[in-house]
Amino acid sequence: MFDYTATYTDQYQITMSQVYFHKGLQEETAIFDYFFRKNPFKGGYVVFAGLEDFLNAVEHLRFDEKDLNYLQKEGMDQKFLDYLKNFRFRGTIYSPKEGDLTFPNRPTISVEASIIEAQLLETLLLNILNYQSLIATKASRMRLSAGDRKLVDFGLRRAPGTGGYSAARASVIGGFNATSNVRAGRDYNIPISGTMAHSFIQRYDDELSSFRDFAEIRPDDCVLLVDTYDTLKSGVPNAITVGKEMKERGEKLKGIRLDSGDLAWFAKKSREMLDDAGLNDVKIAASNQLDEYVIRSLLKQKAPIDLFGVGTSLVTGRPDAALDGVYKLAFANNSPRLKLSENIKKINLPGKKQVYRLLLNDGSFYGGEVVSLAEETEFNTMHHPIEHHKSRDLNEFTKEPLLSKVMENGQRLHQPKSLQEIADYSQQQLNKLPEEFKRFENPHIYKIGLSKSLKEKRDRLVSHLKDKVQLQTANEGFDIEQISNEK
Amino acid sequence: MFDYTATYTDQYQITMSQVYFHKGLQEETAIFDYFFRKNPFKGGYVVFAGLEDFLNAVEHLRFDEKDLNYLQKEGMDQKFLDYLKNFRFRGTIYSPKEGDLTFPNRPTISVEASIIEAQLLETLLLNILNYQSLIATKASRMRLSAGDRKLVDFGLRRAPGTGGYSAARASVIGGFNATSNVRAGRDYNIPISGTMAHSFIQRYDDELSSFRDFAEIRPDDCVLLVDTYDTLKSGVPNAITVGKEMKERGEKLKGIRLDSGDLAWFAKKSREMLDDAGLNDVKIAASNQLDEYVIRSLLKQKAPIDLFGVGTSLVTGRPDAALDGVYKLAFANNSPRLKLSENIKKINLPGKKQVYRLLLNDGSFYGGEVVSLAEETEFNTMHHPIEHHKSRDLNEFTKEPLLSKVMENGQRLHQPKSLQEIADYSQQQLNKLPEEFKRFENPHIYKIGLSKSLKEKRDRLVSHLKDKVQLQTANEGFDIEQISNEK
Repeated sequence: MFDYTATYTDQYQITMSQVYFHKGLQEETAIFDYFFRKNPFKGGYVVFAGLEDFLNAVEHLRFDEKDLNYLQKEGMDQKFLDYLKNFRFRGTIYSPKEGDLTFPNRPTISVEASIIEAQLLETLLLNILNYQSLIATKASRMRLSAGDRKLVDFGLRRAPGTGGYSAARASVIGGFNATSNVRAGRDYNIPISGTMAHSFIQRYDDELSSFRDFAEIRPDDCVLLVDTYDTLKSGVPNAITVGKEMKERGEKLKGIRLDSGDLAWFAKKSREMLDDAGLNDVKIAASNQLDEYVIRSLLKQKAPIDLFGVGTSLVTGRPDAALDGVYKLAFANNSPRLKLSENIKKINLPGKKQVYRLLLNDGSFYGGEVVSLAEETEFNTMHHPIEHHKSRDLNEFTKEPLLSKVMENGQRLHQPKSLQEIADYSQQQLNKLPEEFKRFENPHIYKIGLSKSLKEKRDRLVSHLKDKVQLQTANEGFDIEQISNEK
Repeated sequence: MFDYTATYTDQYQITMSQVYFHKGLQEETAIFDYFFRKNPFKGGYVVFAGLEDFLNAVEHLRFDEKDLNYLQKEGMDQKFLDYLKNFRFRGTIYSPKEGDLTFPNRPTISVEASIIEAQLLETLLLNILNYQSLIATKASRMRLSAGDRKLVDFGLRRAPGTGGYSAARASVIGGFNATSNVRAGRDYNIPISGTMAHSFIQRYDDELSSFRDFAEIRPDDCVLLVDTYDTLKSGVPNAITVGKEMKERGEKLKGIRLDSGDLAWFAKKSREMLDDAGLNDVKIAASNQLDEYVIRSLLKQKAPIDLFGVGTSLVTGRPDAALDGVYKLAFANNSPRLKLSENIKKINLPGKKQVYRLLLNDGSFYGGEVVSLAEETEFNTMHHPIEHHKSRDLNEFTKEPLLSKVMENGQRLHQPKSLQEIADYSQQQLNKLPEEFKRFENPHIYKIGLSKSLKEKRDRLVSHLKDKVQLQTANEGFDIEQISNEK
């Protein structure tokens, strides 16, 4: 694992903190919200991932000696360095459960702490959660395509450096079954999986000998790569020979792997050949530039593939490669805060808030959430964030609060969940989301509404700030695209 | 830094090694080549980066106790575990200098070691070099666009987890001047840089007070973010006020930062306003979804921007997000090895090789390289890898060998170079590459030819293997696109 220290951050977090410190603001309370503005992959949801890693890093976050020496060399003054030496995060974090679904334009996490502590968390939070949520979401889309077939992360070699380590974790949250990444398997307790490389077969003068050696030494875990010379003329026949030999010895050939060519066609032909040889329980694995669309296409063609190994497109989160999550100040200096923008969609929600998911009678998701002031308990309407005439009654729904304290005084409030628990929970939540939000093409837009009080509070603050700076907000600045009250 | 251990690899590397071990092949010599098949970003070259990090990881690569316990739990037998316990890489690595340019379809690194040791290095090598080379190449393209303006990595928050840490390093090799990432600055000795966030300004009831506080505490490093309320009506005028106040105190406002809107237009207007106020030496920094194309466009519009802060597109290597580097077996079992493919371009080069760059009289690059057998010293023609009638005389060129030993018996042969040395070297090399290879649109294709002996060796081996497996190679499998002898 990476040894996070408190310098795992942008320089400005430290310089701003220095200013706050010398201005005597180190005990001032601030609230920051983590949210994003757009679903990745033109999809309808995000799988929220990375929380346990983040909390773990926060609990142990310190400026170590190297950090302090470095910052001194960089010109930080001694008083502030003394403060940093004793820096601990002692604040409160409100979050949904890891693995839950989250959506654009609503707080996904809120951090309440002294302004310096909250500020010094920003980059770490964004770095961990943006990436893991991106990868979990990508994995989840592949899970939607793959149905009950196995999905394995093969991405480490094309991964963004050590990012591949957390990608393995995130992919499990999104629905992957295993990883080839041994170290991630070790540390996160993820099942590990693998077959053999072409080099193994090339090392031998003939394919059959390489298969036999592998079967001899790894009889319980033998998946033979069949495309090194010629899949149907050499690879599969040799695998069948070895499969029969294993059968005679009372062992079982586990599978074959296809890694090139027309995977659908090769899978069908290979399946026939294996079945004709009586090797009906030998599985077929496929890899080679897969993503959610290729997997969907392969299964639509009824390719008899039992396991998909996915690399590059998983760990790089192609084509988006980043989730646009931000961390915005909502409260400081004893009052709610917001950032104006000519684009009203970019104006954040001020103050301390709660998010309620709207559930139907059967517990499934209606497809919308309401953001309210944290202190509100009773409200029965949701309001379109921008269009003033749009609102709706909430009587038919159960409102489930989503943000709960996961850390207080810098201490975690719950035992860390196992990765598999998180993955199972994520799958349950995804099952409750109506199909229209899960389709790849033009998914339904999940509605984020505001309580009346929050909306009025925001609007008052916007007017106040606008008066102050005489902001000329052109009408064309107000475009509505992400947020709509029409189902 | 990440604490690499030898399980930072794909599971199959370990299972294949287990088979080799029990077949008594642990001392058999193998050679693997690292190469890639396509330049990223539709560009004309790749900046080779990550070598020092890789060698550092290799020198210290061990299966630690946690690794061994885990592998035991995963069913590895005790004899093999004992072997792994004593595992050290004791082989030889041949490489160009870090920062040099490299090109598709020629060995970029060769590893010569016992087959197990060479195999166990594969994933680590690919993981480190693919990503850092991708990012260094992306950075280099931004450097080409930015000319002598400053480039700063702002990417940590959108980076692929801890991958962002090595991205900061790689970006310097590609020509960046600084990073916002403090930890990377600390560990890699990269200048760090930063301004202030919107949250800092929002914390205050008015922008001017926030600017004043910042200038008071950080007078030597004061760059004011001017777009929180209204860039030209509020941000720049307030920055000018503070700039003048600083001037009166004998201090100097370093710059302003633009982070939204039409950066070219705002930069021009801001420049005018600053100049009119006598603040001619206040710099203008710009950020917000920049990449090599946006930077080029801004400078083409003569935007007076002195510093570009680049985040997402740098650290994610958009749009490609991965370099397709592979690691292929070239020698084992006492003989040269290759992998057949229906696509001849995918057939690797067998045996131990050397790569010679062709230099013109003035030391600049001709735009091509020749791959030869390692033992060849005299050859005077290069041959097209596929088209048999194409060859050319090399008398006019100086041939510079590119692969030299950087590690022997598992020990590095040279002192690690500083990052700045590597970056300077890279820039020198890039200067020697003719312009046509550096343009973004349809760059010239760098020629990779083979020596006659290597070509004959490969062709003999291909025929031999084809006879053996009676591979039906359809003519359409032979397409020539990447490699051409015509300039």
